[in-house]
Amino acid sequence: MPKRERTRIGIVGGGPAGLMLSHLLAQQGIDHIVVEARTRHEIENTHRAGILEQGSADLLLDGVSDRILTDGDRHDGIDIRIEGERHPIDFQELVGASTYLYPQTDVFIDLADRREADGGDIRYGVGPAQVSDVESRPLITYSDPDSGGTVEIECDLLVGADGSRSVCRGAIPEQHRTAHFREYPFAWFGVLVETPPSHEELIYSRSEAGFALVSQRTETLQRLYFQCDPRERAEDWSDEQIWETFRSRLNFNGFEINEGPVTEKVVLPFRSFVSEPMRWGKLFLAGDAAHTVPPTGAKGLNLALQDVRILGDVLGRWAETGDDAMLDEYSGRCLDRVWKAQHFSYWMTSMLHTTADDSGFDRKRSLGELRMLLESDHGRAWLADAYTGWAGKALA
Amino acid sequence: MPKRERTRIGIVGGGPAGLMLSHLLAQQGIDHIVVEARTRHEIENTHRAGILEQGSADLLLDGVSDRILTDGDRHDGIDIRIEGERHPIDFQELVGASTYLYPQTDVFIDLADRREADGGDIRYGVGPAQVSDVESRPLITYSDPDSGGTVEIECDLLVGADGSRSVCRGAIPEQHRTAHFREYPFAWFGVLVETPPSHEELIYSRSEAGFALVSQRTETLQRLYFQCDPRERAEDWSDEQIWETFRSRLNFNGFEINEGPVTEKVVLPFRSFVSEPMRWGKLFLAGDAAHTVPPTGAKGLNLALQDVRILGDVLGRWAETGDDAMLDEYSGRCLDRVWKAQHFSYWMTSMLHTTADDSGFDRKRSLGELRMLLESDHGRAWLADAYTGWAGKALA
Repeated sequence: MPKRERTRIGIVGGGPAGLMLSHLLAQQGIDHIVVEARTRHEIENTHRAGILEQGSADLLLDGVSDRILTDGDRHDGIDIRIEGERHPIDFQELVGASTYLYPQTDVFIDLADRREADGGDIRYGVGPAQVSDVESRPLITYSDPDSGGTVEIECDLLVGADGSRSVCRGAIPEQHRTAHFREYPFAWFGVLVETPPSHEELIYSRSEAGFALVSQRTETLQRLYFQCDPRERAEDWSDEQIWETFRSRLNFNGFEINEGPVTEKVVLPFRSFVSEPMRWGKLFLAGDAAHTVPPTGAKGLNLALQDVRILGDVLGRWAETGDDAMLDEYSGRCLDRVWKAQHFSYWMTSMLHTTADDSGFDRKRSLGELRMLLESDHGRAWLADAYTGWAGKALA
Repeated sequence: MPKRERTRIGIVGGGPAGLMLSHLLAQQGIDHIVVEARTRHEIENTHRAGILEQGSADLLLDGVSDRILTDGDRHDGIDIRIEGERHPIDFQELVGASTYLYPQTDVFIDLADRREADGGDIRYGVGPAQVSDVESRPLITYSDPDSGGTVEIECDLLVGADGSRSVCRGAIPEQHRTAHFREYPFAWFGVLVETPPSHEELIYSRSEAGFALVSQRTETLQRLYFQCDPRERAEDWSDEQIWETFRSRLNFNGFEINEGPVTEKVVLPFRSFVSEPMRWGKLFLAGDAAHTVPPTGAKGLNLALQDVRILGDVLGRWAETGDDAMLDEYSGRCLDRVWKAQHFSYWMTSMLHTTADDSGFDRKRSLGELRMLLESDHGRAWLADAYTGWAGKALA
């Protein structure tokens, strides 16, 4: 005999999106439960990107934690380099906005701590959950890891914040969803290196040899990436081969990348994906469950937080009024931003990476585009506006 | 026995580029001869686009003619429409610049009149000219149409301003030039219509049915285009089919295109082309002889005038100093602008046209791009800056 519970909002997925939504619902006094297949320990040890837009930082600062102000690094710009030629993009000067370097694991820790302190019903390490009846009376079902018994949670509404391999997405009948894909002919080879950062802000470097990104992690650890073939295997690369590659793409005009022991290496495939609509019946998809972007534009986590910000608003008004019509806005409001971010991520990717089958025309055109962009105050402001999440000041 | 003449600068091609260069050289007292295969009458009756950047208008106003101020129309913006949704781009507000609607034939007439009044040696209807010895002592050879005899013009330097099928370009050995091409899967179907203009500024309209452009010509003639298959033949289209197409792409939200008798119809293929370098030995290519852009960005004539502006400057300093090193700048200075304009033309084209093989992802991404662009002051300013020829004010 399954144990039957009930709640207003059932949330599948306890990553940053699920927990942020939980926080936003708690702020509004809306009853909900979060179920997450991974343990808290597992999530805390999954390293992911961490560039937050101002709007994402604001969500954390609104009652979650202000640790980002002390442990995060405010970035007032990025540095784009073309064959070593430096083109600083000064976000503050151009649009009066900034981003924060603050790893996704820290976002998670802040949210998990806050929900724990606030007595949230967050169930880690249960599942994988099954979902059913998403059109009428959604049900979350999972095996209780302690008792072995089945737990069923009946909810008014269901939220799928369960990542790119979303179980919830699969509950939408195929004829009612459209999957938009784009593959890329390259991947990123990412390393963690035991050295101090080589630069205080991100360096996006395009060269004939390919793209490289210089990022940061802590005072003693740096995060670096270079463009590679998606079929590469991280374990086939020696440290010396890795450094040889970085040198050929970064060490121009006196700049030298700080080298050191490589403590982690991974190949990250690139993919653009959107599943539409983001709402079906009583089910709402949020974050990676609905969309994936290539990492070049640093938009993945920000889009997920943006989704749940909208969802928190929609569910709050729905809970207050009981009017289901409120729910209709969700998909359209999210997708507007999602498609802008998809374009931005695609654009940053295609403009900064090189592929063997670029015709001479496209390679030259792309360099013309970069000059057209970087030599124009308006072009740089447009890029800065998108990078910082369209939160900056309008044209003076 | 051929008639042998000599001059400092031999110019092949008496279209706007060749004649403007002739004007600029005359202003500096540099001896030169222009030879052009077509008669003046033929050129005056070749109808081409006519959106001039401020910098191009300034070249005319500097001693050629100020007729553009009375007979031209100053355009302070364009109107971009997405499925009928209007997005005005106000050039003056955004970047403090404008363009002029002033047909290429009028540019030609002003230049031809000025060169005639100033006693320029412009030889229409001679040729086709042959060119030789472009590395050492360039020679232009043609048959004199009156005497039937051969005329040879020996020059210090040779300029090929002889259009996209340039004879001069062919004089550069193949191993010393690179041709960059891009084809497009569509063309423009252009018509001249006997009705007053439908709108005071250009309308760039993207719709699911395809692209259309509303332009102007005179008070009683309008110039319109729609995107078509490049294999279409103009003569296969009835007026009713043409209007049916325009209606489906333009008549939204109360807007109605002015219909009337179609007096001219033509299919314009789209192609991007650059031949590099633009100088070889004593030969300098200018305008269409070196590059072609799709018409969407209205850059073709402006690039040609930009080339000869730079060439006039370079040749002026060369004539003054006798230093051949001056000549080395030409190709690089031109190509910087050429590749920006190639990107701009490609970008305007790909963003506003639709193709049957767009994946769902690319169609949605492209609409996301348009929203990202048009909803941003910075994005619109960036577009305005490029459209008006990068002459406007910088970011405040």
